[in-house]
Amino acid sequence: MTTGADSLVQTALNAGVEICFANPGTTEMPMVIALERAPGMRVVLGLFEGVCSGAADGWARMTGRPAAALLHLGPGLANGIANLHNTRRARSPVVNWIGEHPTRHRPFDPPLQTDIAALAGCVGWTRSVGSAQEMAEASLAAVQAALGPPGRVSTLIIPADCQWAPGPAPLSASVTPTWRAAPDSVIQDAARLLRTGRTGLLLGGSALTTAGLRAAARVAAATGCPLWVETFPSRQDCGRHVPQIQPLPYFPEQATEALATLNALVLAGAREPVAFFAYPDQPSGLLPEGAEVHALADPEGDVDAALALEALAETLNAPAWVLPSAGPVEVAPRSVPLTPDRLCQLLAAQLPERAIVVNEATTTGFTWNTVHAAQAAPHTMLFSTGGAIGQGLPNALGAALACPDRRVIAFQADGSGLYTLQALWSMVREQVDVTVVVCANRCYRILQVELARAGCREPGPTASSLTELTRPEIAWTDLAKGFGMPACRVHSEVEFVKALGRFLAEPGPSLIEALLS
Amino acid sequence: MTTGADSLVQTALNAGVEICFANPGTTEMPMVIALERAPGMRVVLGLFEGVCSGAADGWARMTGRPAAALLHLGPGLANGIANLHNTRRARSPVVNWIGEHPTRHRPFDPPLQTDIAALAGCVGWTRSVGSAQEMAEASLAAVQAALGPPGRVSTLIIPADCQWAPGPAPLSASVTPTWRAAPDSVIQDAARLLRTGRTGLLLGGSALTTAGLRAAARVAAATGCPLWVETFPSRQDCGRHVPQIQPLPYFPEQATEALATLNALVLAGAREPVAFFAYPDQPSGLLPEGAEVHALADPEGDVDAALALEALAETLNAPAWVLPSAGPVEVAPRSVPLTPDRLCQLLAAQLPERAIVVNEATTTGFTWNTVHAAQAAPHTMLFSTGGAIGQGLPNALGAALACPDRRVIAFQADGSGLYTLQALWSMVREQVDVTVVVCANRCYRILQVELARAGCREPGPTASSLTELTRPEIAWTDLAKGFGMPACRVHSEVEFVKALGRFLAEPGPSLIEALLS
Repeated sequence: MTTGADSLVQTALNAGVEICFANPGTTEMPMVIALERAPGMRVVLGLFEGVCSGAADGWARMTGRPAAALLHLGPGLANGIANLHNTRRARSPVVNWIGEHPTRHRPFDPPLQTDIAALAGCVGWTRSVGSAQEMAEASLAAVQAALGPPGRVSTLIIPADCQWAPGPAPLSASVTPTWRAAPDSVIQDAARLLRTGRTGLLLGGSALTTAGLRAAARVAAATGCPLWVETFPSRQDCGRHVPQIQPLPYFPEQATEALATLNALVLAGAREPVAFFAYPDQPSGLLPEGAEVHALADPEGDVDAALALEALAETLNAPAWVLPSAGPVEVAPRSVPLTPDRLCQLLAAQLPERAIVVNEATTTGFTWNTVHAAQAAPHTMLFSTGGAIGQGLPNALGAALACPDRRVIAFQADGSGLYTLQALWSMVREQVDVTVVVCANRCYRILQVELARAGCREPGPTASSLTELTRPEIAWTDLAKGFGMPACRVHSEVEFVKALGRFLAEPGPSLIEALLS
Repeated sequence: MTTGADSLVQTALNAGVEICFANPGTTEMPMVIALERAPGMRVVLGLFEGVCSGAADGWARMTGRPAAALLHLGPGLANGIANLHNTRRARSPVVNWIGEHPTRHRPFDPPLQTDIAALAGCVGWTRSVGSAQEMAEASLAAVQAALGPPGRVSTLIIPADCQWAPGPAPLSASVTPTWRAAPDSVIQDAARLLRTGRTGLLLGGSALTTAGLRAAARVAAATGCPLWVETFPSRQDCGRHVPQIQPLPYFPEQATEALATLNALVLAGAREPVAFFAYPDQPSGLLPEGAEVHALADPEGDVDAALALEALAETLNAPAWVLPSAGPVEVAPRSVPLTPDRLCQLLAAQLPERAIVVNEATTTGFTWNTVHAAQAAPHTMLFSTGGAIGQGLPNALGAALACPDRRVIAFQADGSGLYTLQALWSMVREQVDVTVVVCANRCYRILQVELARAGCREPGPTASSLTELTRPEIAWTDLAKGFGMPACRVHSEVEFVKALGRFLAEPGPSLIEALLS
């Protein structure tokens, strides 16, 4: 018998969903049985739902195709929401399959009942399946919704009886998102603005591909316009093979200063810049009063930003981009304690070609983004998009499964890494080629900075206790060992370089706890 | 200057909130500063918000007073929701303080923006603060809402500018919930039903105190009525000093069989029984068709169930309850592998007087609830209420902080323990007297049972991979060590008894990984 669950899973597989990150419960048992009966669908267990949702996001960012997350009722979805929030901001296509009690069971308000639709509504498109007969069509609709463009989170709420009852024949449609070229008038308007001077160009989305970045550099060469990358990009091509473009600064003081002289800003796949947080004496919007904003490619729309930049460069008769001849930077490690900047520099020097750097290094990674990544071998960076911490390790898991021929570096702050450390176990189970570099500064450094900005420059015992990850110190090497992952702790530059070299030469996951001074 | 945050925190402290489990971010910095300035408020850092919310619940269950959880924006709240769902089902008083962007910042849709009210609405009472001037009054209202009766989750959404702006003088009201006696007519009706025979009595809430359980036994002695404890109680007095009353069975087949001969059911602090999950051939409601339901004390109301049972026993002229003379049960450990039943039995034999057993042992704990707890020294059990896993370790942290003169046993399944294992770190930091007993069966056993119930008796590789916690095996001893906690692994009965004896004799937290066969 084809169950509703079979109809759903097989339809999703036909539509291009090849992987499901799962932590199911009783209301998802028919889905588990259906996954078993769907050869070609890879199923990966996460020990916590935030691992599943973050891994689905990582997979989707690297492939452009939707990954599924199978989660248990409202609490299971709730555990996945923080990373789904990041997924929403990354515009990655992710399909959630959430089991629900049968409709006849819900008036009894069983213990696990929650308002699943309210939770799902916080992260994207939502549909509750009404009958087993809908299961194929609803499955396809969820994949279509997830793919957009732009990509988004779509959630199907699936009553258990719709899963176990006989279902319709699976649909065989495949789904591909249709990206548009920018209308010529939009390109002409952008060209006119940029030619007037005092117009900047802010890059996001597909503008951060190699093609997009090179086209943006051509536009800058033709017009002299300043360029920035959005502060929290989803995915960016980085390294010596692309022009180095600075991120728009994080703090509003620095961002408003950077943008201060502009009359206009052209957005290529990026949103209008806004302060990440509000402060008493700082504005929310970061552009000067009255500055014109022109969307060459709206990130919430279906225009391909990279193509639009290429068309813009042509319109401007911009010169071709020439690859600078800079070769690898040699960096000699010393027998001295590691600092954040040197850690970034040493990592860049040793980064394998085509690596994927999943960057949740927060404060430690500051000069990675501004200086050192540009000197590394060509690589792809995935970044925290929505500010919900705990993205890095799950993202690295998903990215590694998506790209088994590439090395993944999880460049990970210790505080945020502890949110979803269960991802280490799934990395071991799946034997992915992820090397985790834990930046162990043993504090929430960004909060110490923010506390000082809020006027508390000499924190007392309470504020200190809330920002220091000491008493006791956390031994990441033991946590890794507990999840079956080879690990070592390093204190000096020499130790770090040696450990990184050793782990990168081996298949499978590993972890380096880099103690920072 | 008194900030809005000061007004809020000081008002809450005056109203009886003495502890705050926190993982703040930038939008909560003025709250951190205010917590520093509020002597008498204990502040405990959790490395993940589910630890904070679950610990607040544990503290509230043991004290009956509200604990606060300070969480960062929507994603921080979302991470706390699973345990807040359990809190809601436990009717524990917990106050959430959630930072929010200032109102003027929100039209810019900054990256961390989420619909916080929608998330909070899934777990209870919610209010968004509109101005700093409201901060004292809103703080008091949240405490009042949390205390009920019955207790509930209340969430204050607090824009950062309301925190940092000058606030009003704190309010000095203390808040105590007012529980009522049951109306005489309700007691008379219950007595009449019970005297007719074929009427059962289902206990929950305060009916599970020593006084309530003894009164219920008197009612049973007077009327011959069958008695049950609700399947997922929040808190229950257990041990040799109270009558042993069986929990209503979990699976609907067994529950409906237990209730099959009833014409009526009297509810004392419990809800009308409902199947935890729906199954194709099982009913949702568990009572026989047409059975009368009489609420002696509605768990959603303000009637004290224990007092109502005492009044009912008096009305029935029930005999006094006599403490059975059973002494401690001697159990000789053997040099054989541990089984779930023997683990429960050995733990019961060694349990310290007045211990708090936080029971998230799931399948391993089955005979704890049905057999062995009743033979243990007098103790208090906290149980999983809402089915959202990951409650146990955080609950144990909160309970231990609430009752520093009592030993806490976190009787913990391995699968659910991994959801919120970060609680181990806070236990070490706070040096609480918690001994964690991990029931390491290395699988989601309940799901293996449910999978078989769903018709999958010989799981293939996919279903197996989703229910087995192997490949790799998880070493809880290493995870504990990573968080600074003394730990050991035991294989046999003798090893378990020895380890438990040693750890119970020492102050501070410890962990025993009990490998089960």
